[in-house]
Amino acid sequence: MSDKTRLGNFFEDFRVGQHLVHAPPRTVTHGDAALYTALFGSRFAVNSSDPFAQSLGLPRAPLDSMLVFHLVFGRTVADISLNAIANLGYAGGMFGVPVYPGDTLRSDSRVIGLKPNKDGKTGVVYVRSTGINQNGQTVLDYRRWVMVKKRDPEAAAPATLVPELPDAVPVAELHCPYTLAAGAFDTARAGSAFLWDDYAVGERIDHVDGMTIEEAEHMLATRLYQNTAKVHFNQHVEREGRFGKRIVYGGHVISLARALSFNGLANALNVAAIHGGKHVAPSFAGDTIYAWSEVIAKDALPGRGDIGALRLRTVATKDRACHDFPGHDATADPAVVLDLDYSVLMPRR
Amino acid sequence: MSDKTRLGNFFEDFRVGQHLVHAPPRTVTHGDAALYTALFGSRFAVNSSDPFAQSLGLPRAPLDSMLVFHLVFGRTVADISLNAIANLGYAGGMFGVPVYPGDTLRSDSRVIGLKPNKDGKTGVVYVRSTGINQNGQTVLDYRRWVMVKKRDPEAAAPATLVPELPDAVPVAELHCPYTLAAGAFDTARAGSAFLWDDYAVGERIDHVDGMTIEEAEHMLATRLYQNTAKVHFNQHVEREGRFGKRIVYGGHVISLARALSFNGLANALNVAAIHGGKHVAPSFAGDTIYAWSEVIAKDALPGRGDIGALRLRTVATKDRACHDFPGHDATADPAVVLDLDYSVLMPRR
Amino acid sequence: MSDKTRLGNFFEDFRVGQHLVHAPPRTVTHGDAALYTALFGSRFAVNSSDPFAQSLGLPRAPLDSMLVFHLVFGRTVADISLNAIANLGYAGGMFGVPVYPGDTLRSDSRVIGLKPNKDGKTGVVYVRSTGINQNGQTVLDYRRWVMVKKRDPEAAAPATLVPELPDAVPVAELHCPYTLAAGAFDTARAGSAFLWDDYAVGERIDHVDGMTIEEAEHMLATRLYQNTAKVHFNQHVEREGRFGKRIVYGGHVISLARALSFNGLANALNVAAIHGGKHVAPSFAGDTIYAWSEVIAKDALPGRGDIGALRLRTVATKDRACHDFPGHDATADPAVVLDLDYSVLMPRR
Repeated sequence: MSDKTRLGNFFEDFRVGQHLVHAPPRTVTHGDAALYTALFGSRFAVNSSDPFAQSLGLPRAPLDSMLVFHLVFGRTVADISLNAIANLGYAGGMFGVPVYPGDTLRSDSRVIGLKPNKDGKTGVVYVRSTGINQNGQTVLDYRRWVMVKKRDPEAAAPATLVPELPDAVPVAELHCPYTLAAGAFDTARAGSAFLWDDYAVGERIDHVDGMTIEEAEHMLATRLYQNTAKVHFNQHVEREGRFGKRIVYGGHVISLARALSFNGLANALNVAAIHGGKHVAPSFAGDTIYAWSEVIAKDALPGRGDIGALRLRTVATKDRACHDFPGHDATADPAVVLDLDYSVLMPRR
Repeated sequence: MSDKTRLGNFFEDFRVGQHLVHAPPRTVTHGDAALYTALFGSRFAVNSSDPFAQSLGLPRAPLDSMLVFHLVFGRTVADISLNAIANLGYAGGMFGVPVYPGDTLRSDSRVIGLKPNKDGKTGVVYVRSTGINQNGQTVLDYRRWVMVKKRDPEAAAPATLVPELPDAVPVAELHCPYTLAAGAFDTARAGSAFLWDDYAVGERIDHVDGMTIEEAEHMLATRLYQNTAKVHFNQHVEREGRFGKRIVYGGHVISLARALSFNGLANALNVAAIHGGKHVAPSFAGDTIYAWSEVIAKDALPGRGDIGALRLRTVATKDRACHDFPGHDATADPAVVLDLDYSVLMPRR
Repeated sequence: MSDKTRLGNFFEDFRVGQHLVHAPPRTVTHGDAALYTALFGSRFAVNSSDPFAQSLGLPRAPLDSMLVFHLVFGRTVADISLNAIANLGYAGGMFGVPVYPGDTLRSDSRVIGLKPNKDGKTGVVYVRSTGINQNGQTVLDYRRWVMVKKRDPEAAAPATLVPELPDAVPVAELHCPYTLAAGAFDTARAGSAFLWDDYAVGERIDHVDGMTIEEAEHMLATRLYQNTAKVHFNQHVEREGRFGKRIVYGGHVISLARALSFNGLANALNVAAIHGGKHVAPSFAGDTIYAWSEVIAKDALPGRGDIGALRLRTVATKDRACHDFPGHDATADPAVVLDLDYSVLMPRR
């Protein structure tokens, strides 16, 4: 075997404090943005229109937050999760400066914790990953933890270090890139008259529509992010695997849920933070994704009367409509595939 | 139920004279143009090459006319046809200034007629929709009428007002954006030696090739236009529906027919008008679309010796080749899915 | 039948020395580049990042070499291979100046040989095709030969002229567009520490991963190149054909193999030459493509200490992993679909 091929890091290859430099850097373009629209049908006005974005004080339309997430995440896969069995969770995800076509993103990660599993064959790797633009500004900073195989079950186990993980990104740390003159927000062109003031804590919103996933779609999306996780692409191997088919990248469902959430949350300008999230069950081509959201908190931003934050729980299901908010009570619903805890920014009256 | 979700307008929500402001505005880019090429394989030189477009007096390559149509149309769906049962017809469709990457389009509609159906459950809504660019210039203006459900069958019926609908856009109103110096049109690079002068009224052209539609393709296209009509996307619902499967956006077939028509009409620079059109039957993934055209009229443009108009009837079929021009006589052919009456501009000798 | 439809050239339509001007010219954009990434998941840093490309002395990120190949090739199909039975081979393929978003490419071909087959129904057409940018610079120059049907079996056969075909592009003629300052190449961001010096002649590299092809994907790709070969698109006809299904454009497999080769050849900046290649067997939607490569030669570039060339043989298979390098010995392996002989450029220490 040539030594040129990379098989990815195994559990025993990680050390706490280790700095990982991910490849390749990525200049994002209008082409990426158009593909994202075609893949998810997202209709948020700030991402759709340069003049609309300018009415919010931005130079032009930024990329959808979740496209930024996928691009930063995608870069980390070859180093962190090529030998992962499961993506266990996210915490402390904070979006920084907006990303515009023409920007170049790089991703770096630091190993912040390690926990060998008792089976001796796997362990949990905790990383903090950051996406940085060409000016050195942070566009995204998040923790994630994954269960990774050991190459050699006999390899010595590192000491267990489970890092402290924030329950939520503090409101004071949410990045708000907008400057909104009074009355400048065009609700008609945004697609909804409802602003931050109109939402109530505890309010549940059925996003109504469903979107069926095709193999070509999730593969196009995941390759666009240069995410190389094998399970998404290789039917020849996966047909012998646990599910008999390719698994859809979990982030694909996040993007579908975010796009569906336009119906009910059209003025959610961007995702400012991902506090936590679970891919409750895998999705596959042929599944139809639905979503509903609950308003968990309404947070005023310090010193800002124009824009507020809504902390949301968005639940996505497959092959099940969400008019009765499956999973809203303690009972687990087998249709649930995603449970996401995040904050969006929204204009105030 | 939260009041935040939009379920679309029902028949009783429309009033004659009502002005509808559609969301969101849309900055179009090279990404949209590339996706359109990938989806339909269109080869018209003026849309493919900046220098070629410049040889016709344009600043650079404009978007394909039908991409403009779909983008303007797509914006109207959430307000007009989310609860439509059928798209009944088009009239008076006039393309204005060309659309270039970087332009921002918005769509508005006015309700120009209403006709309650006798069943008491539905009615016909007539709208005139316009697409406007960032300079306030009209890029497209068309009428369409759709059959829309009532929310409440007991709701009072509005008075019937059926608007006057033009049989055709007058030749004098066709917008011709080109300036063509004598001998400047490069037929070799355009892909055909045949110019306006070479076509005869009554001539029928088989466009020969067939193109099979995949689910991922029509969904990518329809989402690119931010058209949210449910029947295109949700297999979980549609498998219980009338056809047992998702219905392809009718405009997808128009774009396939226009792309196929390159073989026989390569010098049709753009669509200048859509006089009328019928989606005769629905199409589905797996269908192979063919097309043929007949020259209905040859129209000189007032004061223009360089460019003329051809009025065309283009018929598209599924799973049936068009060498014998199905549907050309009075007999309805069950393979026909589209019957479009439109005008294109073409260089003259 | 109208005379407007083009049915492509048949064997008897070609003459040695004939110059073919292909349509249409094509302005390439960021949209094309994004689609290419989404279709193949390519991760080469020089194509992914403007700043990375600038560190190599380029003005910005160029298009992937194989996207350039497909765009130039795609233009030739309508004139050369619409009535082809088989694409027999390539020789003397030389990439010239890099292609950047905004460039406009045109393709021309010259017929360099003709050989009637004994069956009297077909013949081999040899062409030399060139891709030229808006400044008149060559971006690609290659020979290919295809077996083409005769329209009329009774048509007179031309004299046989089989052109001399180069076994390989001479090293001195490889175009190297880079200027690499000592130590300027960032191997961490490129994704591999291995440079030209680290590869050995005879070394075989398993590229490990497999990628399954969907119908929507190969059709999107092939239409993006405006390649109109019928067998890729029309299931209505192909289901009655030899294979019962659409055939994947052979170039699609080349691009998959090149993208997969990142794992093992991450620092192969571009393809500089295609010396020869065979589409050994057809591929179809549902096939999973794997690849392996062998280093055939290490070529220093005259006067260049910073960059060297590797001559590679890359073999792609379907539904068969490549850990044992299928096809590396004289035994034909039924899983092999592509056997490509080409040179890449790679930084030296």
